[in-house]
Order: sequence, then structure tokens, then C-alpha cells
Amino acid sequence: MGPNVRAGLMDAFREAIRSGRLAPGTRLPSSRVLADDLGLGRNTVVRAYSELINEGWLTGRHGSGTEVAQRSAEQPAVRRAPRPPAAQQPLVHDLRPGWPNLSSFPRDEWVRAVKRTVTTAPFEAFGYADPHGRGELRDAIARYLARARGLRAQADNVVVCSGAAEGLRLVAAVLADAGVRTVAVEEFGLQTQRETLEKAGLDTVPLPVDADGAQLSALDDEPTPGAVLLTPSHQFPLGVALQSDRRAAVVDWARRRGALIIEDDYDGEFRYDRSPVGALQGLDHDRVIYLGTASKSLAPGLRLGWLVVPDQLVEPIVAQKGWAEETAGFVNQLAMTDFVESGAYDRHVRAMRSEYRRRLRQLVDVIGRHAPTAQVTGLAAGLHVVVEQPGRTGAELVRRAIREQLMVEPLDFFRHPGSTSGRDGVAVGFAAPSPSAWSAALDALVRVLR
Amino acid sequence: MGPNVRAGLMDAFREAIRSGRLAPGTRLPSSRVLADDLGLGRNTVVRAYSELINEGWLTGRHGSGTEVAQRSAEQPAVRRAPRPPAAQQPLVHDLRPGWPNLSSFPRDEWVRAVKRTVTTAPFEAFGYADPHGRGELRDAIARYLARARGLRAQADNVVVCSGAAEGLRLVAAVLADAGVRTVAVEEFGLQTQRETLEKAGLDTVPLPVDADGAQLSALDDEPTPGAVLLTPSHQFPLGVALQSDRRAAVVDWARRRGALIIEDDYDGEFRYDRSPVGALQGLDHDRVIYLGTASKSLAPGLRLGWLVVPDQLVEPIVAQKGWAEETAGFVNQLAMTDFVESGAYDRHVRAMRSEYRRRLRQLVDVIGRHAPTAQVTGLAAGLHVVVEQPGRTGAELVRRAIREQLMVEPLDFFRHPGSTSGRDGVAVGFAAPSPSAWSAALDALVRVLR
Repeated sequence: MGPNVRAGLMDAFREAIRSGRLAPGTRLPSSRVLADDLGLGRNTVVRAYSELINEGWLTGRHGSGTEVAQRSAEQPAVRRAPRPPAAQQPLVHDLRPGWPNLSSFPRDEWVRAVKRTVTTAPFEAFGYADPHGRGELRDAIARYLARARGLRAQADNVVVCSGAAEGLRLVAAVLADAGVRTVAVEEFGLQTQRETLEKAGLDTVPLPVDADGAQLSALDDEPTPGAVLLTPSHQFPLGVALQSDRRAAVVDWARRRGALIIEDDYDGEFRYDRSPVGALQGLDHDRVIYLGTASKSLAPGLRLGWLVVPDQLVEPIVAQKGWAEETAGFVNQLAMTDFVESGAYDRHVRAMRSEYRRRLRQLVDVIGRHAPTAQVTGLAAGLHVVVEQPGRTGAELVRRAIREQLMVEPLDFFRHPGSTSGRDGVAVGFAAPSPSAWSAALDALVRVLR
Repeated sequence: MGPNVRAGLMDAFREAIRSGRLAPGTRLPSSRVLADDLGLGRNTVVRAYSELINEGWLTGRHGSGTEVAQRSAEQPAVRRAPRPPAAQQPLVHDLRPGWPNLSSFPRDEWVRAVKRTVTTAPFEAFGYADPHGRGELRDAIARYLARARGLRAQADNVVVCSGAAEGLRLVAAVLADAGVRTVAVEEFGLQTQRETLEKAGLDTVPLPVDADGAQLSALDDEPTPGAVLLTPSHQFPLGVALQSDRRAAVVDWARRRGALIIEDDYDGEFRYDRSPVGALQGLDHDRVIYLGTASKSLAPGLRLGWLVVPDQLVEPIVAQKGWAEETAGFVNQLAMTDFVESGAYDRHVRAMRSEYRRRLRQLVDVIGRHAPTAQVTGLAAGLHVVVEQPGRTGAELVRRAIREQLMVEPLDFFRHPGSTSGRDGVAVGFAAPSPSAWSAALDALVRVLR
């Protein structure tokens, strides 16, 4: 279908921009949301956006939205680079899940950490890098994770990555090389992670998720998965924690079957009801591959993540990178080391945790008062909740949200094709808006749910 | 063979360390050099090193060498992280090709660029990044390459990568998806690049290289390659430039066959005999995929590279990264933008060019006076030369070098398995040593060639 639908979509945009219905600077819905809203394939929307960007009608950065170009649409300049949006006053209310609060990134502390470390780094730090990552950072991460997340981690088991995304790519390649064919995943999860596994030649089978987290019985179905990808501390996107019997059971399964558990601990630091649930990796560091990231705790733009892997997997993982090819630059690695060692990282996480807790309570309170029919779940941790409303599908909620210039994401976007879950709703983040934008975003959400 | 040979090798090392013949801190030859020297597979050496590191006998960073652990070898600590070496006074003379001078990295200017940019960056810079790379950086790179390397480049054709290595990985995947089966490469080149192509499922066929660069006749052999990987400005490692008729011919070939040219311009800025040869991409920006890097001009540790690709390949390349997954952190991207725009990048390249030219002349002069039988070639550009000596093989020169604690690399390491070239010698870099270490390294080289 692609081309014709895409051409039609592009004409509609050109016309809307020419006519002024879409004013310069207008932020467009993310390709995910629009594709879901219009019932199109996401690639169709993505490519339509790309071509309109190349034609000069739009400016875009696929990570953070697309907007109508800031200039006369009559003679679009051909082929120009995206420019940063006026991010200080966002044109839409951004309640996307998975986005931390960027306005509170500790700029000055980070710059000082860069200065301290780059000024004093040994020459070799500037050279071709150890693909394991800097030794100092692996030490610091191992100590931090043991302290904050209960990991059994030693520096030699830590592999620094350019974000958790690269980490999963390396793990997927190693699993495929080791003969794994099938990986079980939660029935709701990141499409990009399923794509990463499938790109490596691995099939994914969905595990149902209930209030106690992923159901494990399917793990013994034939063909038995060689690994399972879980978000035990805070299921993404449903927000539940894997209950303790199941934590023990999945480790038993892995031992019994000689299988591996991939633990995606993307926001384990942000738990509100009680002290953080320790990482699953603490139960069996020989069976669990731990995936951590600075994307939620600091900023996705740092592109810093870390794997903690069993001894026998360290070298295969590193071999996937190539022996002389680190991917994360040394400046960020050194600065992150300084940040963790100096305690600045802990301070930042604590400060953000209390700010996020405050916002979460407000959100629940406001929805309870103004939209009592809406059910809000997944409150124990993280940067988002799930909102479901009887009589309204997730797609319908997204349509209403777009009218309110509000960005949220439908559960459908995260649904595994094989999922039989009847749940339908939207994932609503509460971290992204700057302090000044937060209450307006909350008001917009209320209008959507009224 | 692996295990037994490896066990023997490991015993030899343990014994040498116990007996003190290998003192703590001693820098060991790179796995490449040692494998060549002992006639072993490189993996055997790499894994022996890794296991000895895990046992605590050695500390290692595969990017920059391995050394005897700095502590009593009697009770090796099990499984510890590599620690940075005392890089200020290198334990060996480092004349490896492909390594720039790290001691001249402009630390203060870089820190200032980080401060300027991180302090003023818009919030969105800290978020999930556009996998194309930052718009500002793509603008700056496009203008710089047009100015300095004669590219026909617009920002939209630039894709920022975590080093040229990631760039080639993305290109290889896109070529394979497009149905390309075979890529022609120069008969001498980086093994890691051949591995990257082969990992993507592409066969490599070697093109003979003579004084005018790669010979192109084999490009019309069956099966016709769908692409060719070249280092036109300064062949790596032989150091010759692709002569102008051949530059035109390879572009004609690509047009005739609907094939693509991958131009690896790793050190095109450093040309000494005359003004830099413009990039091949300037001849046909629809047929050439340009691969650039900051690894030689600034520092490999930045992990910053850039692709300039034909219009129709931009989105496929980016799709390989995944839509919301930049790999290079925003701090380096912003600082690099500032560096290029402010002219600091040009100043640094100019300064290094004259320093490298000075070293090159010294090297040629010293060898001419003290080892007249040695032939030195590849003098027109870059950070290394090729040294051949009648009656001595490259392996023999490497053996002699190791005795002098001198690191150079044999041509054999770069040789394509299918190459029929009779050339044998060593690639000798002249950039890596710090100013204080340079003359001692030169003396060691003379002792090797005497």
C-alpha cells in the first residue's frame, strides 16, 4: 500500500500548510500516534514525514517530534537540516511515557564533571577505546548497582553501551549466535525492542501480563524459549512489578532449561510505594543479563547504558562490538564516572524521585476528582501510568488528546501481535513537562478524560 | 587447535610473570602483532590475553594494549577491571599506524566548547535523539566537508555515527538488504572492515593495489561487485593515492553497473606534498557513500564519525539505527559543532599537519642515513608510512621490533586472504608518540632496520 496512501497523506499536509490550517511551528503528533490514529502503518507516516522534511514543508527530529517549518510554505527550500525546536515553550503538552524531565538535567554539575575529568584524563583515554568501556566507569557502575539495585556485579561483568538499545542489540546477536531461536517477551512492551530481537533472527512469543507481572506458564510451551526479556521492577508500559514468587520461578525456569533472563531495569530507581525492589539479577548473576541506562535517571541524549552479564558472556558480547571499537565516547564515560563517584548521581536521582512522586499524586488526585470513570494503574514506580476509561478505546483517547494538543501513547502501540489481552487505554507520562508546563498538561489531560 | 595452543601460551606467560622475566607494568605486544609473530590465530592470542586478565595476571584494554598486572603475581586477584596504564611515560615505543597524537588533544578548548554548548543547549538536546545526528552538527560537517574536502554535501545527506566503524556497519547492512552480495576491497586494508562487511553477509573480493592506487579491472569480473570500498586519498595501509584517471574510471563503473562506491576518507586532511586531493564524493554524490571520522584529526576516543550518503540511502541508513536511537551522545555532538564552527577544528588540523610533516621528514631522513637498504613509501599523506627491507620479511621486522620494545604492524596483518601481492614489510606510524617520546621511538626504529 505504502506509496499511494503516503502520497495522499503528503498532499493533505501540503494543503493544510498552504492553507494555513497548520501554522508554521505547529508540532505534529509523533509518527506512532498518527499512524495509530489513522490506522496506517508507522513506516508510511515516518516516510511521509521524511519526504515532507526533505521538501522543506516540515522540520523534524524523529526522536522528539516533527513540526511545520518556520517559514513561508510557498517556496519550500529543498533539502535542509532539521533545526532545534523552541523547546523552552513546547507547542504541545508532552505526556509521553518514557521521557524523563529534561529541564532538570544538572547542566552545570555535568560540565564541571567533564572539566575535572577531561583535564586530568591519561592520554590513553583519548585513543581507541576498550570495547568493555572505561575501567573506572565499570568499577563505579558495579559499585552503584550493588548498592542501589542489589546486583551481584563486578566491574569485569559490566559492559558500557551507547544506550540500552545498543546493549539489547549486542545481547540479541550473542543469543542468536548461541543457537537461541525464540525469546519470550511481555505481551506489552517496546516495539523497538521486539524489532531488535527479530532483526537478529529471533522469534518473540508473548507472555500475558497481569497484576503480578508476567505470567510464566507459557515459558514451558514448545518450542521452549532460550531466553525471556522482562521488566521486573516496573513493567513497561503496564507499570506492575513482578511479584516475588514469580521472580523465584523465572530464575528456577532459567536454571532448569539452561535459559537466560534479560532484565530491562530502565527506571528501577524510581519507586514510590516503598524502597526499590532489588534487581532480579541479584537472585542469579549467572542466569540474568542486566540492562541499565542513564536515559531515565539523567538524560536519553547522553546515550549511556550498561550491561551486567554472566562471566561466560562478557567476551562474546564484547566481540560483537569488535575488539577495538567502543561506541560510547570517553567524555561521557569519564563524566559519568565522576558523577557516580562524587554522589552527584544519587543526589539527582533522589531529587527527581521526590519531584516525580509529587506529580504522580497530583495526577491521580486530579483525575479522581474530574474524571472519576477513568482507571489509573501502574502507580508504584516509574515515569508513567496507564489510564483506561470504560466506553473509550485507547485510539479514541488519543484522538481526543490530539485535539487538545496533548501527546500520550495508546497501549495498542506496545501490544505484541500475538497478545490476546483485552486491555485498551493510554500510557501517560508525568515526567517530561518542565515545571512551568506541568499544570497546563494536566488540565489538557483532564479535558481529554472528561 | 585453539585450546591447547592457548593453554601453552598462557602457561608461558604465567611462568614468565612468576619468574619476573615479565615485570609488572610491562606492555605486551598487541594480539595482532603477537599472533603474527608466533604464527597463531589472532583469536587464540586474544582469548589467552582475556583469560589471563580474568585471572589477574594481566590488565588489558584491547584497544590500546595489554600489560602485566601492577601487583604481586603470586596471588592474582580474580576478575578485576582493567585500569588505565601510566600513559604519560609509555612502556614501549608506539609507532602503530592509524594512531594520531593523543598528547596534543586540545583539552581546554574542548572543555570550553562543552561548557558553551551544554550550558545553552535547548532542552530537547538532552532527549531521545534524532538518529540522523544533531541538525547543527550535520550543517557544520556538510559545510566543512564542502570547504575542506570538496564534497557535494548538504546537511540532510549527513548521518552522524559513533565512529566510522558504526558508519560502515550501517552501510553494510543497507547494502545487504538491497541485495548486494559482493563488495570489492583493496587487497590491503583493515581486517575489521572486512569483518564488518562479512558479518553483514557480504563477500569481499580483493583489488590489487599499485603505485596509482587500486586496480579496477577486476570490478568487471563475474560476479560483479555491487559496491567497492576504497581509501582514495591515502590508501590504507600502503599510502598511495588513487590516480585521477582511476578516480574517473571507478565512478564510470559505478554508474554503468548501478553500483556504489564507499569512500573511506579516514585521514584525508593530512596531505603533505600538495593541497589535499578532493574527496571522490565530489565527482558523483549519487554513487559515493562518504565515510569520515574525527579519530585521526582529533581523537578516536570521541567516537565521532559521519556518513555523507546519496539522497535515497539516507532513510535506509537511519532505519538501520532505529528511529529513536542516536548512538553518539549529544555532548560530543554539540562540542564538535562548536569546534568546527568556531574554526578551532581547522586550527587544530593545521597545527597537527605541520607537526606530522616535520616528523615524516625526520623519519625519512633518519632511515635514509642509518638504514639505506630500507624502502620507505606512502609519504604523500597520512599518519604512517610503509617500510620494506630486502632480505627481511615483515614478520622478521616485527620480531626485531618487539625486541626493541617497538610497536609496528606487519603488512600481512592487512592482507586480504585472496591477495597475490608479493609485498612484505611493516606499516610504521609517526603520529602516536608524545613529543618527548618521539626521538626515542625513532632511534628504536633505526636499531630494528640496521
